[in-house]
Amino acid sequence: MISFLNDYSEGAHPKVLAALTDTNLIPTPGYGCDPYCMKAADIIRTRFACPGADVHFMVGGTITNMTLISASLRPWEAVICAKTGHINVHETGAIEATGHKVYGMDTPDGKLTPELIRQAMADNCDGKDEHMILPRMVYISDSTELGTVYTKQELTAIRQICLELGLYLYLDGARMACALTCAENDLAPEDFAQLCDSFYIGGTKDGLLFGEALVIVNDALKPNFRHAIKQRGGMLAKGRLLGVQFEALLQDDLWLELGRHAVHQAQILAKALRDKGYALYAESPTNQLFPIVTNEKLAELSRSVLFEVIAKPDTEHTVIRFVTSWATTDESIKALIEVL
Amino acid sequence: MISFLNDYSEGAHPKVLAALTDTNLIPTPGYGCDPYCMKAADIIRTRFACPGADVHFMVGGTITNMTLISASLRPWEAVICAKTGHINVHETGAIEATGHKVYGMDTPDGKLTPELIRQAMADNCDGKDEHMILPRMVYISDSTELGTVYTKQELTAIRQICLELGLYLYLDGARMACALTCAENDLAPEDFAQLCDSFYIGGTKDGLLFGEALVIVNDALKPNFRHAIKQRGGMLAKGRLLGVQFEALLQDDLWLELGRHAVHQAQILAKALRDKGYALYAESPTNQLFPIVTNEKLAELSRSVLFEVIAKPDTEHTVIRFVTSWATTDESIKALIEVL
Amino acid sequence: MISFLNDYSEGAHPKVLAALTDTNLIPTPGYGCDPYCMKAADIIRTRFACPGADVHFMVGGTITNMTLISASLRPWEAVICAKTGHINVHETGAIEATGHKVYGMDTPDGKLTPELIRQAMADNCDGKDEHMILPRMVYISDSTELGTVYTKQELTAIRQICLELGLYLYLDGARMACALTCAENDLAPEDFAQLCDSFYIGGTKDGLLFGEALVIVNDALKPNFRHAIKQRGGMLAKGRLLGVQFEALLQDDLWLELGRHAVHQAQILAKALRDKGYALYAESPTNQLFPIVTNEKLAELSRSVLFEVIAKPDTEHTVIRFVTSWATTDESIKALIEVL
Amino acid sequence: MISFLNDYSEGAHPKVLAALTDTNLIPTPGYGCDPYCMKAADIIRTRFACPGADVHFMVGGTITNMTLISASLRPWEAVICAKTGHINVHETGAIEATGHKVYGMDTPDGKLTPELIRQAMADNCDGKDEHMILPRMVYISDSTELGTVYTKQELTAIRQICLELGLYLYLDGARMACALTCAENDLAPEDFAQLCDSFYIGGTKDGLLFGEALVIVNDALKPNFRHAIKQRGGMLAKGRLLGVQFEALLQDDLWLELGRHAVHQAQILAKALRDKGYALYAESPTNQLFPIVTNEKLAELSRSVLFEVIAKPDTEHTVIRFVTSWATTDESIKALIEVL
Repeated sequence: MISFLNDYSEGAHPKVLAALTDTNLIPTPGYGCDPYCMKAADIIRTRFACPGADVHFMVGGTITNMTLISASLRPWEAVICAKTGHINVHETGAIEATGHKVYGMDTPDGKLTPELIRQAMADNCDGKDEHMILPRMVYISDSTELGTVYTKQELTAIRQICLELGLYLYLDGARMACALTCAENDLAPEDFAQLCDSFYIGGTKDGLLFGEALVIVNDALKPNFRHAIKQRGGMLAKGRLLGVQFEALLQDDLWLELGRHAVHQAQILAKALRDKGYALYAESPTNQLFPIVTNEKLAELSRSVLFEVIAKPDTEHTVIRFVTSWATTDESIKALIEVL
Repeated sequence: MISFLNDYSEGAHPKVLAALTDTNLIPTPGYGCDPYCMKAADIIRTRFACPGADVHFMVGGTITNMTLISASLRPWEAVICAKTGHINVHETGAIEATGHKVYGMDTPDGKLTPELIRQAMADNCDGKDEHMILPRMVYISDSTELGTVYTKQELTAIRQICLELGLYLYLDGARMACALTCAENDLAPEDFAQLCDSFYIGGTKDGLLFGEALVIVNDALKPNFRHAIKQRGGMLAKGRLLGVQFEALLQDDLWLELGRHAVHQAQILAKALRDKGYALYAESPTNQLFPIVTNEKLAELSRSVLFEVIAKPDTEHTVIRFVTSWATTDESIKALIEVL
Repeated sequence: MISFLNDYSEGAHPKVLAALTDTNLIPTPGYGCDPYCMKAADIIRTRFACPGADVHFMVGGTITNMTLISASLRPWEAVICAKTGHINVHETGAIEATGHKVYGMDTPDGKLTPELIRQAMADNCDGKDEHMILPRMVYISDSTELGTVYTKQELTAIRQICLELGLYLYLDGARMACALTCAENDLAPEDFAQLCDSFYIGGTKDGLLFGEALVIVNDALKPNFRHAIKQRGGMLAKGRLLGVQFEALLQDDLWLELGRHAVHQAQILAKALRDKGYALYAESPTNQLFPIVTNEKLAELSRSVLFEVIAKPDTEHTVIRFVTSWATTDESIKALIEVL
Repeated sequence: MISFLNDYSEGAHPKVLAALTDTNLIPTPGYGCDPYCMKAADIIRTRFACPGADVHFMVGGTITNMTLISASLRPWEAVICAKTGHINVHETGAIEATGHKVYGMDTPDGKLTPELIRQAMADNCDGKDEHMILPRMVYISDSTELGTVYTKQELTAIRQICLELGLYLYLDGARMACALTCAENDLAPEDFAQLCDSFYIGGTKDGLLFGEALVIVNDALKPNFRHAIKQRGGMLAKGRLLGVQFEALLQDDLWLELGRHAVHQAQILAKALRDKGYALYAESPTNQLFPIVTNEKLAELSRSVLFEVIAKPDTEHTVIRFVTSWATTDESIKALIEVL
């Protein structure tokens, strides 16, 4: 079986694992108050050109999202997202479990727009009716759950509407490395710090054992955030593990190199899919592909390939997902193309 | 500086790290549905003699406690613990953040007793007054936050009162390996499975990079627990890391060997403390010691030793904490004894 | 100004107020443990043919909904409703504030169907994927927020799908008296008890100062519900006020008489609207009407009539809402028709 | 049976009921946006000398406490109170259900002091340790649950420590009218507005059918509070009922007259108790008395008097509670004294 199931099937990139091994027996203070975390945070502040930002290292995406969002909102405030947004669909109601409504908007491609955000506000009387929730944050992902990416113009427009409407902008960068290295991208790392109130740089899906680096740019969201992390259960005792890994990942932009590899492999596959006449459910320039296959092909593929089933558009067809990663080999790609 | 700050200052025991390295590039399904987790769960079920138990691997203690407790209780139900209990003091109100009162009882030694549990129920009209919370679970730790341990007779008596009063019994085993290997212990691993509704085996403080193994024995607490883990943010994408580590830790009872070493080192230190005339705040037979030192000694020790300050019993004295671990060397012990 | 703003603009029906006055100085135990509440509960059990049901008297609709729903669900469970459902739109995220996702389905008329419920389950992998919420309850209203009602066949079909899919069925009867007395209705009070796990009989919108009677039919939802009421802040100290009022309202089916009056007045108005050529946004046979008016008419009506603005279907038109009540006079209806 | 069970056994004071009757059929907007609420709020602002305060009318004490406290705190923040405080003992964990720890301090008389508040902060590392909750509000009652009252000097001292430590001060005035009219009191209504960030004036226990007037003085606690009320289920549809009642209660200081009556009756009883040699569990100058009775007396009293049992100090004695109210007659007092 060849696996295109997801981008977290393997352990860590060898350089990351080596860093963990090298530092294994050096004693440090716990809970992220160690020199490795300090240094990794500094590297991030420099790389993203946000010298005043707070950086917190977290174990995974869901706990990062729920901690940041619940710490930013007052009880009656809500977060707007695409209906396909990870917090709306794949986190078992984690945001609601902290007390906040997730207000999902239908989108064709997993991307929010100024118009959709304005509509979400209007749907809730612009927060002026106390019988309705008060939207206060916009959640977007880059790349999105459908593999699509935001352009600089699009992200800037979202920023502007957020400023106009009094909304925080938070960006889930679980697959930021793939977004930044795809052909359609014109964003630079510093743009995220410039345009978002907070965002996270995904490590789990980019070669770490685990780990996401949450960057808080807006001063209003900074106070007591470590209390929030501890209360939500997200404070790692041996926090150093996160600092050590991120330091290795950021060294010489390894994070982008790994993202670029995943995108490259995926796009070879995308070309093959198009050449063979497959329709694609979403136009993804990154490392997730969503071909629509017949029932016969589905059965055939299942015999030799691991992948996820996404949707059943009709009784004859199925949307499936292939994901590549930093670890996807040329052999796997070739093998998959052969059976398509 | 020599560190007696805690038992999670280093990375992983070399055997654990080796297991991670050996399996690093083998692809597996995510979220704990991999062969390593399956195997480690089986080993635990065998070692603790609970073939029907559910085993879930979690990243850390706080998220384990909050997930298990909040998944076990209905909204108006509460958990009884010693006032010094970790959930009451050192988790930033994580249990309350899930909606439940923590009802802390004063204890001399960090240990609950049947009398204290009965008192906690009586304080709340035995759950019969709807204006008061309904206690429904007892939380204990072994070893406790003061380093003390339960005897088999004590734990059995607690079990009986829990059955009588309709209370679940949950045991936090963050330092179970030290408890089981200390001189005062007469409990065996299978006793925990026999006497508790749920308990966890601590890995973070016993030589893992991170990880706790939550064992759910009572069928009533099992349904949909993976939903609970995901919702609280505790589901690790590369869940295999937990299975791989626990498999290594359980191999040839390495977990007990590491606990035994920590206890051994601590008790050498305890003897030295007593010989030098220090009063001890708690009578701990395990790996945490709580000497009471004068202000002068405090200042002196601070120059060469890392430790935690626990309390100020009067203006002249301070209770401090020394913790040993699987990684504490003979040299450190000797060096500390010299400066005492 | 004549008011068609809502059905809670006045105080209580004179018979209800008289009952409060008559019993005012008789001392009783607090919190609903008084003879008036006992008697009113008995009358309800008889009138709805559910001798084994629990009846709890609550102050208002939102607290009734949030208490019942949050007491019925485990943390990761969610409630399905029409997108227009009161809990989804007009309760400021009260359900989410108790930790549960509200899963709203688009409907043409505010009514759920078996197909929509099945779709809601399918959207969430039928509760089998721990990364998604587990739908566990269906919330419907009769009449709905759009004034529409369920037929017996429709409600029975919903019941059957709920049984098939393991879902509780909860019915918000804030306007039950109007539903039961409209021309399209073929449900009897006992049908609600037969087909729902829980429902409430609205008093606030049917002539009480305040008050809703929550009926819990399913034994699984009964235990400790008074704890739930107290914890959510819904336990009235002088609970007798609810019993006294409901006893008066149920006497000689006054509740239905008041509902019938409201519906009658509304339907006179509906006929006038149709005769005058107004399009209606929803086909409501009950006491809420939703005419679509031009901007000129909107401005004109605003000068002499109080009503709510519901939506702006296009730049030229507005959907407004007229609501009648037990207190709506023939003069008001005549006056409104004149200015239409 | 004569009842000394509580101060909410009867309906409303006749003047309050008359006001409700007089205004019953006048239509008004809902949710507290009516002229009666506006006027009652103005009267309160004047009477308490806080022209800039926000006034919100609530149905009962528990929902007032939970709404104000949960709207004031960020998730990791906690509230300090006396261990006997209503929020800690008699609200079924309502505050914890909104996510916040209640930190109860042992007191001899139900009253907090600057020393106890400082200790509560020190117990939690003054909020500087992210592993512990951050106390952010002090909750006190006047009169307290033991019937005791604060002097102006005491309340001023609490205010000062709150300012010093960055704590909000919130006062539960469920029995404020009794506190203000007892012999030991030297506080005036305006002192509450001067010294507290928020407080509520109790109506339920002072002659209303129901109702508490929450006054928010501190600007930081004002924004979006109506969203909070709605979300927690506390917004009354016919909000006018609260305005109408409070207007009647405040007219000619009826509220204080009713409190004075309750206190007067209680203190006649207190003298009789002392004269007859009863020990009192608390020195209450207000309308709650806590005599300690023998088992024989307990049995005897139970035959003709309704009262609450508070505690069992030893096997031979019981602490019981007698409460008087605005409705307590001379005959009841005489009858009770006779059987003492």
